Amino acid sequence: MSAIASAHAAPLVAPRVVALVGVSDGAGKLSGRPFQFCRQHGFTGQIYIVNPRRDTVLGETAYPSVVAIPVPVDHAYLLVGTGLVEAALDDCIAAGVKVVTVLADGFAEAGAEGRARQARLVAKANAAGIMLIGPNSMGVVNSGTGFVCTTNAAFKTNGLLPGRLAVLSHSGSLIGTLLSRGTVRNIGFSHFVSLGNEAQTCVGTVGLTLVDNPDIDGFVLFLETMRNSTAFARFAAAARRLGKPVVAYVLGKSREGQALSVSHTGALTGEAAAVGAFLRHHHIAEVSQLDALFEAPALLLQKPRLADRPRVATVLTTTGGGGAMLVDQLSLRGVALTGLGPDSAEFFRQNDIPFGSGKLVDVTLAGAQYDVMKAAITQLITDATTGLLVVAIGSSAQFNPELAVKPIIDAVAENPGAAPVAAFPLPHAPESMAMLQAAGIPAFGGVESAADTIALFLADDMGPDDMGYEEPERMAPDVAQKIAALIAAHSSGAVLDEVDAGEIFTGLGIAAPPAVWVADKGLKADDLDRVLDAAGVAYPVVAKLISPDLPHKTEYGAVTLNIMTGDALETAIATMRTHVARLAPHAQIDGVLIQPMVTGLGEALVGFRRDNLVGPVVTVGAGGVMAEIYRDVAIRPAPVSVQTARQMLDEVKGFALLRGYRGRPVGDLDALARLVALVSQLAAFYAIAEAEINPVLVQADGVVRLDALIRLGDENGALHG
Amino acid sequence: MSAIASAHAAPLVAPRVVALVGVSDGAGKLSGRPFQFCRQHGFTGQIYIVNPRRDTVLGETAYPSVVAIPVPVDHAYLLVGTGLVEAALDDCIAAGVKVVTVLADGFAEAGAEGRARQARLVAKANAAGIMLIGPNSMGVVNSGTGFVCTTNAAFKTNGLLPGRLAVLSHSGSLIGTLLSRGTVRNIGFSHFVSLGNEAQTCVGTVGLTLVDNPDIDGFVLFLETMRNSTAFARFAAAARRLGKPVVAYVLGKSREGQALSVSHTGALTGEAAAVGAFLRHHHIAEVSQLDALFEAPALLLQKPRLADRPRVATVLTTTGGGGAMLVDQLSLRGVALTGLGPDSAEFFRQNDIPFGSGKLVDVTLAGAQYDVMKAAITQLITDATTGLLVVAIGSSAQFNPELAVKPIIDAVAENPGAAPVAAFPLPHAPESMAMLQAAGIPAFGGVESAADTIALFLADDMGPDDMGYEEPERMAPDVAQKIAALIAAHSSGAVLDEVDAGEIFTGLGIAAPPAVWVADKGLKADDLDRVLDAAGVAYPVVAKLISPDLPHKTEYGAVTLNIMTGDALETAIATMRTHVARLAPHAQIDGVLIQPMVTGLGEALVGFRRDNLVGPVVTVGAGGVMAEIYRDVAIRPAPVSVQTARQMLDEVKGFALLRGYRGRPVGDLDALARLVALVSQLAAFYAIAEAEINPVLVQADGVVRLDALIRLGDENGALHG
Repeated sequence: MSAIASAHAAPLVAPRVVALVGVSDGAGKLSGRPFQFCRQHGFTGQIYIVNPRRDTVLGETAYPSVVAIPVPVDHAYLLVGTGLVEAALDDCIAAGVKVVTVLADGFAEAGAEGRARQARLVAKANAAGIMLIGPNSMGVVNSGTGFVCTTNAAFKTNGLLPGRLAVLSHSGSLIGTLLSRGTVRNIGFSHFVSLGNEAQTCVGTVGLTLVDNPDIDGFVLFLETMRNSTAFARFAAAARRLGKPVVAYVLGKSREGQALSVSHTGALTGEAAAVGAFLRHHHIAEVSQLDALFEAPALLLQKPRLADRPRVATVLTTTGGGGAMLVDQLSLRGVALTGLGPDSAEFFRQNDIPFGSGKLVDVTLAGAQYDVMKAAITQLITDATTGLLVVAIGSSAQFNPELAVKPIIDAVAENPGAAPVAAFPLPHAPESMAMLQAAGIPAFGGVESAADTIALFLADDMGPDDMGYEEPERMAPDVAQKIAALIAAHSSGAVLDEVDAGEIFTGLGIAAPPAVWVADKGLKADDLDRVLDAAGVAYPVVAKLISPDLPHKTEYGAVTLNIMTGDALETAIATMRTHVARLAPHAQIDGVLIQPMVTGLGEALVGFRRDNLVGPVVTVGAGGVMAEIYRDVAIRPAPVSVQTARQMLDEVKGFALLRGYRGRPVGDLDALARLVALVSQLAAFYAIAEAEINPVLVQADGVVRLDALIRLGDENGALHG
Repeated sequence: MSAIASAHAAPLVAPRVVALVGVSDGAGKLSGRPFQFCRQHGFTGQIYIVNPRRDTVLGETAYPSVVAIPVPVDHAYLLVGTGLVEAALDDCIAAGVKVVTVLADGFAEAGAEGRARQARLVAKANAAGIMLIGPNSMGVVNSGTGFVCTTNAAFKTNGLLPGRLAVLSHSGSLIGTLLSRGTVRNIGFSHFVSLGNEAQTCVGTVGLTLVDNPDIDGFVLFLETMRNSTAFARFAAAARRLGKPVVAYVLGKSREGQALSVSHTGALTGEAAAVGAFLRHHHIAEVSQLDALFEAPALLLQKPRLADRPRVATVLTTTGGGGAMLVDQLSLRGVALTGLGPDSAEFFRQNDIPFGSGKLVDVTLAGAQYDVMKAAITQLITDATTGLLVVAIGSSAQFNPELAVKPIIDAVAENPGAAPVAAFPLPHAPESMAMLQAAGIPAFGGVESAADTIALFLADDMGPDDMGYEEPERMAPDVAQKIAALIAAHSSGAVLDEVDAGEIFTGLGIAAPPAVWVADKGLKADDLDRVLDAAGVAYPVVAKLISPDLPHKTEYGAVTLNIMTGDALETAIATMRTHVARLAPHAQIDGVLIQPMVTGLGEALVGFRRDNLVGPVVTVGAGGVMAEIYRDVAIRPAPVSVQTARQMLDEVKGFALLRGYRGRPVGDLDALARLVALVSQLAAFYAIAEAEINPVLVQADGVVRLDALIRLGDENGALHG
């Protein structure tokens, strides 16, 4: 954690002196809320109101400026209109304020003028060493100290629960939604930060500032975009090191949602799949149900209890239909379920506890007895074959919490080293939920959020710091130098054709079949035969016109397959030239590339690009049209190790055809994984914006690169790492 | 509705005299619950307790038998153990009871003995004209009369809300879950029926019994199986005729869930996709979120207000992030969203109401004023371009219901013919929810259930009674007769090979290319040439060995493509015989089928089968391996019209390749739709259990059947109609 982050931690969430700048007088005004909420929730720090046009506001002395406040100010919340923000920031700078939060909109989300305004704000804050939150921020809240410095009306609540989860949200209104919905589940939050436009700070930097706060056990993120993936990754790594789970809900899974993210906070939004892969890579638990956002952390905090246990769930229930519903939802999410292991089955039999058949352990009404339920739970959590035990409780959760949840709580308390336990009361059962939570047992209010969270909890970790994870290979310096030189020969923004891009891939270690390059237009059949013979290329061959203007050659009739003779080759070249002259008359033709026809068991396409939000990513999909029609593509932040590339291939359904499907021959997926890992190394060359090999031919023994395409980034560097 | 159903309606849910058979004495006993709940909830009918071993039970006179009860009994709930059920039913028969509900388990779900026991129960009830609910039933509830005749502990609640939705559930425990979760959303239910094993009655017959009950506005189904699809379809049709929506949650979407359905209630479980298609076909709204099960009906009741309006949603919000979240979830479910139409945009501009940009109408804080919000809503719902208006309300829903929901309620009340409106309060806001519901405005507690329900509400109806729906064609009587004769030539259980099955398909009007049938093993190249010439079949040809034992010929090397000469044909036949002799030595070879090679733009596979749960279904998928690897198949109850078959093709992603994908030629999907409709006509022939054409070749002009397979049902008729 950086010294700067550390220095701002206290003034951000635990200031002693706060300035509220631009508070209007009169009840019900938005700008008056932070003052009223701080008072209502017992903030013990000093609050100064700044309003140059009044002597008193809301019954308090109003100061003409921040500079005029007689003591040093830790945190100022600027509640003034857009046009007054810069002057107010100047005032804060002059007063030596540490953290400034800005409410106003009209910045990066508001056209060129707004962007310029925002840039000036950031420059000023940076120069002064000020941490800036917003603009467009609904404020910062510390439930523990009563620093409820927000304009969000939800904090009018009298029941601000204590909690140990910090909320970082791009949306200011959502912090109110989370507060309200968490409260009804008896889940409180320690802090809320409304990040707004993230002009200077972002979820990553604010997260880093708070990550070692001892009042915080975990983080809850409501994300509309990703502005600084490097800072985000550092925050995620720090949280993981400290054993603090981070759970995220990402807005913009649909195109419409992405468009709204844009209009909403001025963020560019990229492909949802890239963001998802980035979050998984950094061990962030992405949930798809809103409730899981605050319900998941309690279970994820139990991860150490899972340790060497199998990644499986056992569902124990007193209520068949409800338990079956949970099993169904878990299975749909790919969770492996076990019934009773042999030891436990023997125990249940000896003790006459019913357990049904199959994968749901249904103790039926016998579970309404404390002793029976406690014995069953104790047996299951001390059985080494148990991963996570989930107890689905029936109506007794509603009317007999003592009967329904007491045996769970006692069994867990008496077996500290045992398997983790989660509970799902089928009915609405606030009293049982509260008892469970007080005992540190994660409980869920809905079957969907329970299933979402349990799936995340049991998922294998795939990030960089797990046991057995191979670091991506380091490129040999001479290889790197050679590739850098090849790239340097082209101007920025250039699209490199198969020959030029091919040189770079060959340099990386991804060779193509032998090829003959024919620039001369006049070659006849005999000449062509001689040239091929000299190069050791035998018929049948494939011929392609090479042009920087035709990245998708097939669509222009610029590829001919399976040419058997020199005569046919001569004809094919002439025909292709005719096609292109008609379909793309301005395309520059550099020559003809002739290669032996090679055949394989299947095709793949491998791509690399710099995502606007999360940076370099590598993708691999089934070849042909399947990747596109079925979106059958795996994606990861680049670079990846061969091991990770192999996991990617496992995710691509279409590669079933290369895994011995219905007796077909098996393709060399290990070679394909090595190729994917090599392509992912392009991440090291910031000039490369995008690259693709389409297709890669997968053979029984090895893979063959049949094409190559690379696009360099624009000069403005927008696409650089 | 049948006379029987009608005659049982009152004794089922509104009995005047109830017998509770087998109630134990002492507090806290399960069997005592129905009595206690009826008393607690003010049931005004007469209750008689039957217990031959006691004079009084729970302070009431206990009768030795039902016959001994001095008045005629409408409804008896048998709370006795499995072994005593038959005798208790005999007692009920002797006493002339109309409806008997059975709690005990140990019937169809418990092996052969249990099945026999259940069969005896049903036979007795049928003979006596008794309606039987269960066994394995947790009872029947009428909230309106206080007839709370259930063993489900959830009914201990004091707050049994009135309601106008009837719950029919295979799971008894789930009725408690729905009661409890509905109550917290302020949603009550009129009736609950726990269907148990559905030995005599089922969701369809009970639904038909209740469908015209004036206290019921709609039905909520928790389904673990489908035991009588014909009765279900009749119930669905009746509910639709009466404008009563039916919403269903189906357990068993996963394989594990299906296995549990089996163990849980003794039901066979079929393919989830077939059940889903069946429900859609019958206009049942299948939800995937449990909360939507009780939240959806209120919105679906508004369907008449949608009438001729466009099937689009407009989201109006005061809270950007929350509104965007709803838009995102709606878009993910394929809901079309519109921003402001031109008239409304003009209105908003003239009245200085902010509305953001894009598809989310964000009035921001301006929406915190009653007049602004009411004007905005009034404008939107009276705009003819609006379909459904959804209002996403921010924190004001929690603290200022008057401000947040009053304008919605007033605008709706003052514009009776306007567009339907739904509301989604972002925070937990029970007071606002109650106000909205009291005003008849559907409100949702979660973004996921809101999005699920809105998607169902706006979906185009595809069932049989919608405008523009074409009835499946009727088969000409002579065609039907001919096919019936062809089927009759084979024994039950037979698998018909390409030749025999092909005759049936040809009879239906699905011809194959001309073919030559060669039974003689000794034919040489010259002989083969002559035979082909005589039949008008020219090279290149394809040759296939025909055997009833090789339904998947390719896997046995029994197909050779692209044969150019008589010599090659002779060799190919010999080679194929060698292959089969090695791979399937016991396969009987009837001969060789030789057809001209035909080529097409793509392939499809078309199938027909009788699903164990929902009856005859027709499927169509992309050919090759795509259908299987990507589960890229559309399914419908059979028969279907050509129009419905066309809709099925639209659902198959892989057919993108035949729709002019990237400049490819367009395939004749109309011809394919006609073929699918013809195959679906096989539903009329109960002897056919399964049929498949794989592949159908799709050409630019027409389709060609390249194979054929039909399997007849077993003699026991398990797979028949």
